[in-house]
Amino acid sequence: MSIVVVGTVGYDDVETTRGAVRDALGGSAAYFALAARFFSPVSIVAAVGSDFSSDDHRLLAERAIDLRGLERHEGRTFRWKARYHADMNRRETLSLELNVFARFSPTLLPDQRRSDYLFLANVSPELQTRVLKQVASPKVVGADTMNHWIENEREGLLRLMKQLTILMLNDDEARMLTGEHNLAKAGRALVKMGPQAVVIKRGEAGVLHFSEAGVFAAPAYPVEEVVDPTGAGDTFAGAFMGYIARMGKVNEAVRRAAVVYGNVVASFVVESFSLQRMSALSWEDIAERHRAYNELTDSQPPRWTSP
Amino acid sequence: MSIVVVGTVGYDDVETTRGAVRDALGGSAAYFALAARFFSPVSIVAAVGSDFSSDDHRLLAERAIDLRGLERHEGRTFRWKARYHADMNRRETLSLELNVFARFSPTLLPDQRRSDYLFLANVSPELQTRVLKQVASPKVVGADTMNHWIENEREGLLRLMKQLTILMLNDDEARMLTGEHNLAKAGRALVKMGPQAVVIKRGEAGVLHFSEAGVFAAPAYPVEEVVDPTGAGDTFAGAFMGYIARMGKVNEAVRRAAVVYGNVVASFVVESFSLQRMSALSWEDIAERHRAYNELTDSQPPRWTSP
Repeated sequence: MSIVVVGTVGYDDVETTRGAVRDALGGSAAYFALAARFFSPVSIVAAVGSDFSSDDHRLLAERAIDLRGLERHEGRTFRWKARYHADMNRRETLSLELNVFARFSPTLLPDQRRSDYLFLANVSPELQTRVLKQVASPKVVGADTMNHWIENEREGLLRLMKQLTILMLNDDEARMLTGEHNLAKAGRALVKMGPQAVVIKRGEAGVLHFSEAGVFAAPAYPVEEVVDPTGAGDTFAGAFMGYIARMGKVNEAVRRAAVVYGNVVASFVVESFSLQRMSALSWEDIAERHRAYNELTDSQPPRWTSP
Repeated sequence: MSIVVVGTVGYDDVETTRGAVRDALGGSAAYFALAARFFSPVSIVAAVGSDFSSDDHRLLAERAIDLRGLERHEGRTFRWKARYHADMNRRETLSLELNVFARFSPTLLPDQRRSDYLFLANVSPELQTRVLKQVASPKVVGADTMNHWIENEREGLLRLMKQLTILMLNDDEARMLTGEHNLAKAGRALVKMGPQAVVIKRGEAGVLHFSEAGVFAAPAYPVEEVVDPTGAGDTFAGAFMGYIARMGKVNEAVRRAAVVYGNVVASFVVESFSLQRMSALSWEDIAERHRAYNELTDSQPPRWTSP
């Protein structure tokens, strides 16, 4: 039930209306792993540079994240700078430096090759495919993608999709990949393109989950203090995949419950900059918000039926 | 359990990416009543001009809508022209003619004055207040509003809010009225301003319902063919108030169930232009989509637990 995640581990400069951070630990694999660890052992496959701090390494290692696959190369770590608008659903990427990640070509460890659960975070379809080929017989393969790959590596992405169990992407990406503006239609079209299930992430509008069994709509937990939305999608993915790995099987009921945990855990990450909230999170925090989420979405609340 | 609704009955010219209609029957009270009638008797208080067609009068009357309060005045009926963007959450109002509605000052009939359920659709807070004063002891008073009144009749709206049971408004209006960008905070602030409950409408992102009991998030039903979003909010309000009137009481459980019926019925109105779909709708259609909505939002689907 261990999960392997391939993605970035890097440093972010992020500015929002609530403040700014520089050189903050980030990257899709870091966010993913810090969420998944609550549900399942998780192993990061990524590369960092010689500037990667031992404190950050320790932060991940102390939280039981397997870092044997975190390669250290000469050079600088992956870096990303972004600024969010007052409407935190919108942001501008100010700069992106792949640095050592540009020449990253991982060779998975023997036990990673036998993994049942694999998540291909938002890297090139070519790299995602190269990693997937090394895993012998995964039970569940999830992947994220983005507009850049949809525009520039469409064929590779379409081939990869046929091998996926679960595809995650945001609403604009779903529209771009299918050419369909309507999300209900886009979701149905995506399921026909290969994955058993498709999760369309809509920020504060929540998540739509599509499969042959139908559509599941899960609202976002309404967070009162959104400080930094960075990593919400990767955190969602980590909790979602983590829950599935913990259950040891995947069907519609498991995926829907996993979507709920994805929303619950992602609601924490946005409450502070970078991974601050995630690195201090406890299982009790998650359980409490899971109860709150169930109340939030309960259309037949028995305890409120008195006049 | 009869509902009185004060609002507009008029003619709309609407253009969307899916086509256009001219002189189509519309207006907040018409949309409201055609939804509410499935749950409760409903009585329209509005004014139309001498150009109001007998066919349109008959369309409403044949669907058991009480039109004794639909005054006919010399002059033209209320008219509205709008164009929707490809993103149907956005539209431009091209023209608005109040016409006979400009001098509308209704006097309610004796039985309307004894009504338990009153809905003040989106007209001026001054007119909403004038109607409210005529109703002796309503059990539930709902109201809608819009940016124009928030900007130009703020004091009147704030006074009215103290007398409301339920306020409905969209996300931008909630932000404008509270000065709070975060919707979770805006909703909480609005409940403190008077109403027992506040419904924030977010288009295809669904609805947030706030009360002292907490927050309820209800996704929109994902409609595959959105032809014309006009009237979705008024239709939501009609089904919501209709359900409450039918239950004969209001508490958190009743309001949450009412929100679900609001979403369900509103999902039909957008499937065709104007009131075409609503005037042909059956209770069986509603019941079937209500079941589909429950599946859409069911995070613990028992029948999908096999591997």
